[in-house]
Amino acid sequence: ASVDKGVDFANYFCTYAFLYHQKEMLSDRVRMDAYYNAVFQNKHHFNGKVVLDVGTGSGILAIWSAQAGARKVYAVEATNMAEHARELVKANNVQDVVEVIQGSMEDVQLPEKVDVIISEWMGYFLLRESMFDSVICARDRWLKPTGVMYPSHARMWVAPIRSGLGDQKQNDYESSMEDWYRFTDETQSYYGVDMGALTKPFAEEQKKYYLQTSLWNNLHPNQVIGTAAILREIDCLTASVSDILEVRSNFLSTVTLPNTRLCGFAGWFDVHFRGRKEVPAQNEIELTTAPSVDNGTHWGQQVFLLNPPIRVTEGDNLNGSFSMKRNKENHRLMEVEFNSEVKQYSGQLLPPFRNRYFIE
Amino acid sequence: ASVDKGVDFANYFCTYAFLYHQKEMLSDRVRMDAYYNAVFQNKHHFNGKVVLDVGTGSGILAIWSAQAGARKVYAVEATNMAEHARELVKANNVQDVVEVIQGSMEDVQLPEKVDVIISEWMGYFLLRESMFDSVICARDRWLKPTGVMYPSHARMWVAPIRSGLGDQKQNDYESSMEDWYRFTDETQSYYGVDMGALTKPFAEEQKKYYLQTSLWNNLHPNQVIGTAAILREIDCLTASVSDILEVRSNFLSTVTLPNTRLCGFAGWFDVHFRGRKEVPAQNEIELTTAPSVDNGTHWGQQVFLLNPPIRVTEGDNLNGSFSMKRNKENHRLMEVEFNSEVKQYSGQLLPPFRNRYFIE
Ligand SMILES: Nc1ncnc2c1ncn2[C@@H]1O[C@H](CSCC[C@H](N)C(=O)O)[C@@H](O)[C@H]1O
Ligand SMILES: Nc1ncnc2c1ncn2[C@@H]1O[C@H](CSCC[C@H](N)C(=O)O)[C@@H](O)[C@H]1O
Repeated sequence: ASVDKGVDFANYFCTYAFLYHQKEMLSDRVRMDAYYNAVFQNKHHFNGKVVLDVGTGSGILAIWSAQAGARKVYAVEATNMAEHARELVKANNVQDVVEVIQGSMEDVQLPEKVDVIISEWMGYFLLRESMFDSVICARDRWLKPTGVMYPSHARMWVAPIRSGLGDQKQNDYESSMEDWYRFTDETQSYYGVDMGALTKPFAEEQKKYYLQTSLWNNLHPNQVIGTAAILREIDCLTASVSDILEVRSNFLSTVTLPNTRLCGFAGWFDVHFRGRKEVPAQNEIELTTAPSVDNGTHWGQQVFLLNPPIRVTEGDNLNGSFSMKRNKENHRLMEVEFNSEVKQYSGQLLPPFRNRYFIE
Repeated sequence: ASVDKGVDFANYFCTYAFLYHQKEMLSDRVRMDAYYNAVFQNKHHFNGKVVLDVGTGSGILAIWSAQAGARKVYAVEATNMAEHARELVKANNVQDVVEVIQGSMEDVQLPEKVDVIISEWMGYFLLRESMFDSVICARDRWLKPTGVMYPSHARMWVAPIRSGLGDQKQNDYESSMEDWYRFTDETQSYYGVDMGALTKPFAEEQKKYYLQTSLWNNLHPNQVIGTAAILREIDCLTASVSDILEVRSNFLSTVTLPNTRLCGFAGWFDVHFRGRKEVPAQNEIELTTAPSVDNGTHWGQQVFLLNPPIRVTEGDNLNGSFSMKRNKENHRLMEVEFNSEVKQYSGQLLPPFRNRYFIE
């Protein structure tokens, strides 16, 4: 599946050309603290080294790498944000170390191999945006055999949740359909055209929009009603694109709250900065986007709603299988499927259910 | 300037593939009444005739044309909405007359020339979306020399307005900048990076977003503070693409309210269904998107804000020159410039002002 560059720009890159959007990421304290600490608490990985920043955006990670002692930093950015990165590099007096290169990582030529690849490539639920592909491509072409990946590891998580969003979206869907019926009545009586034939496709479109599209949400930890499970672990040094094209996994979760409603699932990720076996991090840093009272991120969690919710209680077991693949029309979007079954604490098995979702 | 079809689809056509969006247009009573009356009060244009509907969407205009007696209707639609149009045609029992053809108007081959071209091609402020290009292309290739255009004429209007939106947007802009300064302080103190170099480009980006992007608004007629002026008249039968690539016009408006604020300009359009000189309409129908208490449309008006407003009063004359051209990166978006000057009733000339805007 070859990707039209112009289309990819219109659908994806364009937003990153706005300072407003870069600022949103730069204002995410959890994200910033993690990368900042990862770099400055592990200067041995940067001091005197050659670094590649894949997708430098405003240039922040490249500037930090230089400040941590890098000999040379290649900072690659596809959008015109590259110009701002160049200004920022100068204003922070690291222009002798950081070289900003505007272009797609896939097309760029570097004059040498690098010791470190640093990149903030994570999208919603880790893999949305499919930007890790570009990091893999950079790694395979430019990382020295002894090189280090920043971050070095990533994981996808899932957990059962309760949430009022399900009822709300169900209501939205229902009023949209009521409005539709009013509309078809009026179109018939005022304009002599019967729109009834479109009721089914309209309902499907609205169902997809309101009920089958995952939602961005920063959940409160007490909305998580069962144990969280790991869906996937990625070693950034060795993963290949074919490893991440699809994610399939079974998971098990035990409900931890008495008498509650299973309203859906939440998906999130974490990444770690562990260095490399031969040259481990001195201080291992974690960046997590799990539900949290004080440490929400701009990634939040992705919420997949169940309609209607299912009554569950402490000790019930949730047996699930998860799959995620890329949207055929836009490889940066995802399609998700959950197949699940509740085995009650009593031993009773509830009817299995199967749901498909779109991460848009 | 050649247009990449994939990019055009990602930027433009994609929204029309949603029934939700078609429904919005189909729920616009002013729009619907105008086309409905234009067709059914002028059946002589349709009875026994061959009709081409450029951009049929849900198929509504094609179905009406058939119901008004057309012998054959070609209904061309670029998006997958074509499939729904086909269903609707069948459900309304005009499948022997209406042939839905999925494709770009520019690429489609018809087996014969047509007597009527009907199309709802108007975007915000008439020309946004640049869809009239496709109607012109259809006309030049497929309309018989004696053929009729539905609509037959179009006009662009401008008038001076008062509005609270200007203060609001100015506030939004200012708080966005305050937030930026807080952000640069924090980035300096927590993360050792000076973002000051980006203050100017960030301010420009935000100014463009909040103050230089025209706004959709359904104005109350009492917000119009002076006489409205015509910027452009288009004869749909004869206009060429080069005629509408740019719109340049001088205009004059006299303030009609005592002691008020000139807060900007509003732009709107109307179209008429007059048939053709040799075969005029029996009932001339007008579709106007002017400010109105009861007859707002989904087009509303485009508002171009002045910051700060200017005090004016009854009898003051506003002398303006207007230009609109297409955005270089996206030919369906527009860039507008106003050069204006207030000549007070007393004879005193206020300093001229010049403003650029983006219709996004
Ligand atoms: N293949 C590719 N080549 C170059 N830049 C890319 C890319 N894929 C994504 N990007 C860029 O990568 C950036 C990801 S956002 C992260 C920006 C910055 N590193 C920070 O941490 O704040 C965006 O600016 C995007 O335009
Ligand atoms: N060049 C082109 N070829 C085919 N369809 C086009 C086109 N340019 C725009 N369209 C289609 O024209 C429609 C305009 S909206 C109007 C829809 C319908 N005629 C109605 O009045 O309700 C959209 O569905 C859009 O996809």
